[in-house]
Amino acid sequence: MPSFTAPTKDLLFVLHDLLKVETQDIPGFAELDRDFTSAVLEEAGKMAADVLAPLNTVGDVEGCRLENGIVRTPTGFKEAFAQMREGGWTAIDCDPDYGGQGLPYVMHTAAQEPMVSANMAFNMYQGLTHGAYSAIYFHGSDDQKRTYLPKLVSCEWTGTMNLTEPHCGTDLGLMRTKAVPQDDGTYKVSGQKIFISAGEHDMAENIIHLVLAKIPGGPEGIKGVSLFIVPKFLVNADGSLGARNGVSCGKVEEKMGIHGNATCVMNYDEATGYLVGEEHKGMRAMFTMMNEARLGVGLQGYAQAEAAYQNALTYAKDRLQGRDVTGAKYPEKAADPIIVHPDIRRNLMDQKSFVEGARAFTLWGASLIDRAHKCDDAAADGLISLLTPVIKGFLTDKGFEMTVAAQQVYGGHGYIEEWGMSQFARDARIAMIYEGANGIQALDLVGRKLALDGGKHVMAFFDMVKTFIKENEDNAALKADFLDPLKAASKDLQAAGMFFMQSGMKAPNDALAGSYDFMHMMGHVCLGLMWARMARAAMEALENGATDTAFYETKIATGRYYMARQLPATAMHLARIMTGANTVMALEAANF
Amino acid sequence: MPSFTAPTKDLLFVLHDLLKVETQDIPGFAELDRDFTSAVLEEAGKMAADVLAPLNTVGDVEGCRLENGIVRTPTGFKEAFAQMREGGWTAIDCDPDYGGQGLPYVMHTAAQEPMVSANMAFNMYQGLTHGAYSAIYFHGSDDQKRTYLPKLVSCEWTGTMNLTEPHCGTDLGLMRTKAVPQDDGTYKVSGQKIFISAGEHDMAENIIHLVLAKIPGGPEGIKGVSLFIVPKFLVNADGSLGARNGVSCGKVEEKMGIHGNATCVMNYDEATGYLVGEEHKGMRAMFTMMNEARLGVGLQGYAQAEAAYQNALTYAKDRLQGRDVTGAKYPEKAADPIIVHPDIRRNLMDQKSFVEGARAFTLWGASLIDRAHKCDDAAADGLISLLTPVIKGFLTDKGFEMTVAAQQVYGGHGYIEEWGMSQFARDARIAMIYEGANGIQALDLVGRKLALDGGKHVMAFFDMVKTFIKENEDNAALKADFLDPLKAASKDLQAAGMFFMQSGMKAPNDALAGSYDFMHMMGHVCLGLMWARMARAAMEALENGATDTAFYETKIATGRYYMARQLPATAMHLARIMTGANTVMALEAANF
Repeated sequence: MPSFTAPTKDLLFVLHDLLKVETQDIPGFAELDRDFTSAVLEEAGKMAADVLAPLNTVGDVEGCRLENGIVRTPTGFKEAFAQMREGGWTAIDCDPDYGGQGLPYVMHTAAQEPMVSANMAFNMYQGLTHGAYSAIYFHGSDDQKRTYLPKLVSCEWTGTMNLTEPHCGTDLGLMRTKAVPQDDGTYKVSGQKIFISAGEHDMAENIIHLVLAKIPGGPEGIKGVSLFIVPKFLVNADGSLGARNGVSCGKVEEKMGIHGNATCVMNYDEATGYLVGEEHKGMRAMFTMMNEARLGVGLQGYAQAEAAYQNALTYAKDRLQGRDVTGAKYPEKAADPIIVHPDIRRNLMDQKSFVEGARAFTLWGASLIDRAHKCDDAAADGLISLLTPVIKGFLTDKGFEMTVAAQQVYGGHGYIEEWGMSQFARDARIAMIYEGANGIQALDLVGRKLALDGGKHVMAFFDMVKTFIKENEDNAALKADFLDPLKAASKDLQAAGMFFMQSGMKAPNDALAGSYDFMHMMGHVCLGLMWARMARAAMEALENGATDTAFYETKIATGRYYMARQLPATAMHLARIMTGANTVMALEAANF
Repeated sequence: MPSFTAPTKDLLFVLHDLLKVETQDIPGFAELDRDFTSAVLEEAGKMAADVLAPLNTVGDVEGCRLENGIVRTPTGFKEAFAQMREGGWTAIDCDPDYGGQGLPYVMHTAAQEPMVSANMAFNMYQGLTHGAYSAIYFHGSDDQKRTYLPKLVSCEWTGTMNLTEPHCGTDLGLMRTKAVPQDDGTYKVSGQKIFISAGEHDMAENIIHLVLAKIPGGPEGIKGVSLFIVPKFLVNADGSLGARNGVSCGKVEEKMGIHGNATCVMNYDEATGYLVGEEHKGMRAMFTMMNEARLGVGLQGYAQAEAAYQNALTYAKDRLQGRDVTGAKYPEKAADPIIVHPDIRRNLMDQKSFVEGARAFTLWGASLIDRAHKCDDAAADGLISLLTPVIKGFLTDKGFEMTVAAQQVYGGHGYIEEWGMSQFARDARIAMIYEGANGIQALDLVGRKLALDGGKHVMAFFDMVKTFIKENEDNAALKADFLDPLKAASKDLQAAGMFFMQSGMKAPNDALAGSYDFMHMMGHVCLGLMWARMARAAMEALENGATDTAFYETKIATGRYYMARQLPATAMHLARIMTGANTVMALEAANF
């Protein structure tokens, strides 16, 4: 069975050495001193390693079973969920008015990471609940907030998001689920929703479904979509549970992975629903939550890679096979551990440099969400809107790729389920698909975010890179290994952006045919920027007399690897992009 | 459930338009006229589509079960295996002296492809048997050939290869299984072998295990390994089955995929074994078969991608979602099929251009094996030895990547097992691991094959590319789209080869740290060469008045896509390689 240890030290490095959270001028950040964050992350790490990790294989093997309308979660999940609630892990960044701890979102994100690494399928139950909390918190009425939020904050009740239907996922304008207004102000919701994570299960008293549906007579397409609260059990005025609502689970899907999470077909049959916000404005509520939800999925991508990497590293140190080509490292043993071999090193360094870069990128993104929300900062809001599809698309593509790379270190054992490496890859795979498939992220980035507010945010991003390079150009230790490659990669990205602008309206396919490459290219530039910043932070720590020199030196060496071996990918993506749409769109559909 | 149609037309294009098999001066090739190959491939395609494809999901869902020492294969496998035997599909390239049809290996390979696409797990039972046939055919005694070959050719008996043990896979010198000589000339074989594909099952009367073991007192390490025939049932002098031998299946592994194939732990307890060839020369017999076996695994990689691509294409034409950005293509429908979207096109073209290039590469490789064997051609033998790790490593890495890409076209449905896309990815994954993990292929390529015979074969490969470019440089239709990119990519590859030569002995880690990138780079150059050749062949066909113009024009357009969008990867690989081993080997193992 695989093992897991929370990367607490590295999380603290990102929070304090890199982001210097306690000095940021965002309400609530001053509280985040190192003693406090250490204490929280130590406990989160214990919860992840001691409670959640041991249930990861159990969840995969047992899965969720639908029995007479009730979904049974795997052995031990219920008890672990209770521990999660008791530990307050579901409430970190929620409003204290509803029982939350009111901490910054960046702290919630940092504490989440080890739990997602340890057991992604399990953690989704609370992740979805957090999404439902946010939808009601930002768009619900006071009455709705009072009724639902305290129970969602504590996870006594859990939440779901119901968007997809059998014939529509990306194109929600095609939605058929309808909500018919009733005289009492409620709606009768009818239709079928699919791929509903945590749609039905046995770990909570009630499940609060957030459902997109169309009110008959409303505008066509996406502009006629409204958002409804549809509780599994209706809630009485005194807060107690009332009648069972007309919503039921029709099927639990058999999936490639995340077996511990119940992915349900949900049938709504004149279920009572309560409108959230205004009629026909349902998508607005969805969009509010999207940056958070997509950042959460990006985190899943690299968190699975982290878990897989830890095990691949252990295996590479333990497995004796062959000899170091430059001379036996352990002549007294039958063979050397495979970590001596350059190609195993390459593989491990790919994983390590990706995961650490992704962690920095994601927590930086989370801090931008805090700044946008808590400081009402339009620049931060614009920047995180731009970066969100990159965090989601790039980190999940690469995250999956790295779980596959980690599996490869095990040779044949990687393919055998009992070693657990297959599960990391199978679980990580979903993150590339849900919450907007990665092709949609690329479309969002190139078709929407680049031009948002007149291209202001992408220009701000380029300025940020340029300013960092300029501010540090006299730093010889950074120059050749970090700043020069970052400059080259950023130039590639700008050239691609320029090409898109020029093709823009007159040949939109030229831009869209390069959107996926652009997303990856921008991901590399973002990780390159993170690594340059982390290298500087590590150098500063060493200059300031940090005692843990091995940690900081390793950080710099890992960054050098990323800059030398990963960042050159931008030139390839640029070369592809510059060929435009010609070869991509050359064939008639019939001739494929 | 996914569907499958054999790509017969494209197989015929490769055999006749590209390789022009019937005109090649190799014994047996003259028989391969288009009427004959069409008839064979039509029948192979029917067998694949009608008999094997419908059992692919069955095999995945049911898997193989060990019950009281007997392994039960999935429902329908036994009957399908009988049909396979009756159709003569197990005997295509085997020696007529033993019941084979004596056709070229390239024909066997072409006929195999659709069967592997349709049901990889099933097809392994005969694939392993073919390997056992080859081992005995090339290294066994006349008596052994008479005893075992006819039954292996017909697949009345099947075969296995037993190399791996729990503590050793790549490094077979660590092997512990021992073979003790007996007075009657036989050996008593004892030990445990793992990951034995088709190690035990209920589809054949007897199973002939080929087992590597050490004879006590022999040389240390890999030089003391011998090869033995260990039949499940001993064979009497009259050919009838005798006593049960001391070999049994201890466990059937739970794997990520290929559930329909029984991957067994095999226990040998003083089992009677018969030496194949000379004592301590077991590895030589293994190496003889390696080119064929590895080519077969490379084929698995792209054959799974072919099957996945076919389904992704169908889905992309059927699924209505969103509108063509340049204007609705089907305004009368609720939405356009997703194949109108540039990013879906990019994805499909990646798949299509890879699979068709890989098919050409593999069949070219198979024809080189024919030339090497049947003409005793050392140049062909050297060239295929060089190309084999590329065929195995590159085509399985990319093949898996493309099954994942095909799965992505389905969005959420791709993750649900009943749609079948997950199985393609899970099955394809193993091809990157077995028959020498891909890191080992890269090591074989860079550490061994590049320098083989003084580097003669890699120089011959470069000459071949150069000659092709020179011969066609006046062909304006080829020049910019095919020859120029091929020249650039080949130059990148040569630069990397030069760098390796220069670091060579004095800094072997510099070469080994770049071995994986080199393997991929060389894969791209090989596919680039194939595409340039295929484009020329298609242009010739059009000039010669071929009526199926859409097919040939599509071929050229698909090639243009590969050259424009895939081949630029060589520059990235070169950039990585040129950074040497510094960043790769920078960390102490303890500091990871």
